[in-house]
Amino acid sequence: MQTVYGQMSDEQLDRVIEQLRDQADQVRSRGLTLDMTRGKPSPEQVAISLPLLDTVDATTDLHDEGIDCGNYGCFEGIPSARRLAGELLGVPSDQTLVLGSSSLLIEYETINMFWLRGTCAHAPWEAYAASHSGRPPRILCPVPGYDRHFAITEELGIENVPIAMTDDGPDMDEVERLAATDDSVKGIWCVPKHSNPSGVTFSKRSVQRLATMRTAAADFRILWDNAYAVHDLYPDCEPLANIFDIAGAAGTQDRVVAFGSTSKITFPGSGIAFVAASRRVLDDISRALKVALISADKMNQLRHVRFLPTLADIRAHMARHAAYLRPRFELVESKLAAGLGASGCATWTHPRGGYFVSFDGPDRTARRVVALCRDLGVRLTPAGATWPGGRDPRDANIRIAPSYPSLEELSDALDVFVLAVKLVAAEQEAAARAESRESPSEAERPSLRKN
Amino acid sequence: MQTVYGQMSDEQLDRVIEQLRDQADQVRSRGLTLDMTRGKPSPEQVAISLPLLDTVDATTDLHDEGIDCGNYGCFEGIPSARRLAGELLGVPSDQTLVLGSSSLLIEYETINMFWLRGTCAHAPWEAYAASHSGRPPRILCPVPGYDRHFAITEELGIENVPIAMTDDGPDMDEVERLAATDDSVKGIWCVPKHSNPSGVTFSKRSVQRLATMRTAAADFRILWDNAYAVHDLYPDCEPLANIFDIAGAAGTQDRVVAFGSTSKITFPGSGIAFVAASRRVLDDISRALKVALISADKMNQLRHVRFLPTLADIRAHMARHAAYLRPRFELVESKLAAGLGASGCATWTHPRGGYFVSFDGPDRTARRVVALCRDLGVRLTPAGATWPGGRDPRDANIRIAPSYPSLEELSDALDVFVLAVKLVAAEQEAAARAESRESPSEAERPSLRKN
Repeated sequence: MQTVYGQMSDEQLDRVIEQLRDQADQVRSRGLTLDMTRGKPSPEQVAISLPLLDTVDATTDLHDEGIDCGNYGCFEGIPSARRLAGELLGVPSDQTLVLGSSSLLIEYETINMFWLRGTCAHAPWEAYAASHSGRPPRILCPVPGYDRHFAITEELGIENVPIAMTDDGPDMDEVERLAATDDSVKGIWCVPKHSNPSGVTFSKRSVQRLATMRTAAADFRILWDNAYAVHDLYPDCEPLANIFDIAGAAGTQDRVVAFGSTSKITFPGSGIAFVAASRRVLDDISRALKVALISADKMNQLRHVRFLPTLADIRAHMARHAAYLRPRFELVESKLAAGLGASGCATWTHPRGGYFVSFDGPDRTARRVVALCRDLGVRLTPAGATWPGGRDPRDANIRIAPSYPSLEELSDALDVFVLAVKLVAAEQEAAARAESRESPSEAERPSLRKN
Repeated sequence: MQTVYGQMSDEQLDRVIEQLRDQADQVRSRGLTLDMTRGKPSPEQVAISLPLLDTVDATTDLHDEGIDCGNYGCFEGIPSARRLAGELLGVPSDQTLVLGSSSLLIEYETINMFWLRGTCAHAPWEAYAASHSGRPPRILCPVPGYDRHFAITEELGIENVPIAMTDDGPDMDEVERLAATDDSVKGIWCVPKHSNPSGVTFSKRSVQRLATMRTAAADFRILWDNAYAVHDLYPDCEPLANIFDIAGAAGTQDRVVAFGSTSKITFPGSGIAFVAASRRVLDDISRALKVALISADKMNQLRHVRFLPTLADIRAHMARHAAYLRPRFELVESKLAAGLGASGCATWTHPRGGYFVSFDGPDRTARRVVALCRDLGVRLTPAGATWPGGRDPRDANIRIAPSYPSLEELSDALDVFVLAVKLVAAEQEAAARAESRESPSEAERPSLRKN
């Protein structure tokens, strides 16, 4: 990437760096404490769900279609909640389980089950290495991606294999090649709609290719974390193709395991979470989970279905969320465009939903930008977090999470971010010039031998 | 056990069996559907917790000591809830984690962590077998015990080793012998107060011996499921010694991992669940669980601490629970005493808390009693469930769970149960006599060879 700093004379560059450092000193003296680390809705945004807390009180009938939500039982979730989860994930309700408050925990438990017990009568994933000269099973990880996904598979000893993201979803040529030729490739992590952090929604063609591609592993699983299924910023967002319908038609229905929750619909951390799969895979998951769980919190399921009985109600509610998020995302776009658009220093995504903007600066700058921002009072997701093992080979990608701060705070935080990107890029250019003066390349170096 | 039927003449026995079968036919014709399978409180009993549902509504301040319960964060649980969990389990609040609604799930996750990662820098339990000629790690299981505990360890491939229960807790001579001599013995399951199903509270001496005994395995763990910590039927119940204090004094604090929940304090399945351990073991658990969980449902934690802020409040609430449970347990005692006290057919426990009565009939009758009860319209926990693998070697033990039915239903169910025990015992006596007539022992048999 040729940056604006690369085109400056040494004197110009020194002057710009001096100016940027002065600006940084001024920011530092303000003692800011701003946080853009995580995809958390702002307090005002969370408040739109407060009426949920009034749906169940001491006078409420605690039954849902005959199920007493106030006592043990109904492991699979209450009927109304399963119907809602089915609508959200695109399956009949009997292909869902509605469990506790965390979809991440269900993902962990599901993969733990694949690891320890296997799925659909296939060998446990943990047995793969022993029968294949110690080669661990592998999971494809579209990058930049979600750090917590990568941590789950890494924790079990699965090898995370980075796959580039395109505007249509993961690089499907590479996914198909690896899945078809390498039977250690047991699955792929996906956030198919408004992907974390790129904002990409997988194209219909990508969904079709994922659902129908040849896989060397018979127990290949698409880990379909549809976390942002209804999290559109604009009313005309591209819909996500229904992967269950495509897989069902292709006879690959056991390949897809989908997850979701209401954490960013109602209360983060206090929502209801669910999983959808073929009956066969769902039976695997149920059998394993029933060892550890009598039944989940049905009272919270009841609150949710009383507050948001149908998918239409959820969509109306999400439009109210979008009213808080849209100006924040538009502020990111305008601040980055104004501050860095002509710098040649940066590219970033223009998401139409979800919670993140994915930013790419010059190579070997992301860690320093994040460190400088922190020094200036703005906390960002650690650089590298969007890559397996926290290792972004280019050290270029930063996840911007604009949802939590107020617009005013966000504006300040983005100014700091833009300043930090500029300063680090300019300093990198200066350092490169200094280095090339001290150790010129072979071509430029006077030949000492000939003397 | 010499039964009343063993003392009858053949004619008397035949007559009694005929009478009992007539009674069974009459019961069968009533088409009862009664359920004593699980330790569930009755709907009326659950209703005493309904005011909890009014503690948080749309107008409530959702902060607990600075923590916003309506958003992500605070993985370890809100401060008030940790304090309450600490009071309940007998540790400072910083030795607790308050998580979701199921203590069983925390138990599973904890043991899964021991299995996959190990604890306190020791090797993972799963690695034990590979380095010990395939011998799996073992867990001591006091019997009769809790089927779901045994299922968790069995699921992972751990060998469950039955240990007899005494009136003071597990047979400590045997526990000490196995723990000291066998380094595959990695721990012991305990329900130390009002044990499931025997109702035994471990004596102070047993708690001391568990906390201080020599263990061949350096990573031996006491899985202390204090599920019935405050579930006394009478105000003068024997207290449980604080195992953390004893272990702390003996330097074995990393040995104890305690679990609990409010499932039988507030709403079964919708309570809050917690774990307590040394800081070191708690760090192990946190590190593993943070991979899978951002934060648990803090809103439900808030409801709980607003409803029951202190241990004293919990104790007052539990006295109201006892008012529902006590008459049921006293009915079990009186019905069994009246129906079977003089039969020589049965012994049973006389719990002063918890949710169960443990019943022992003649050997080789429990399965048939449970089957007959089911045939007569009364569902019981499957015979054998109180033993690892569902295999009670004597086929004698049955768990009676009297909490859910109304007193009237319970009375009917106990009449059926007493009838079933009598009929199966009498039929067993008759079958034994018939067998002994058909195949007399060597001594009684005429010598055919000499003819």
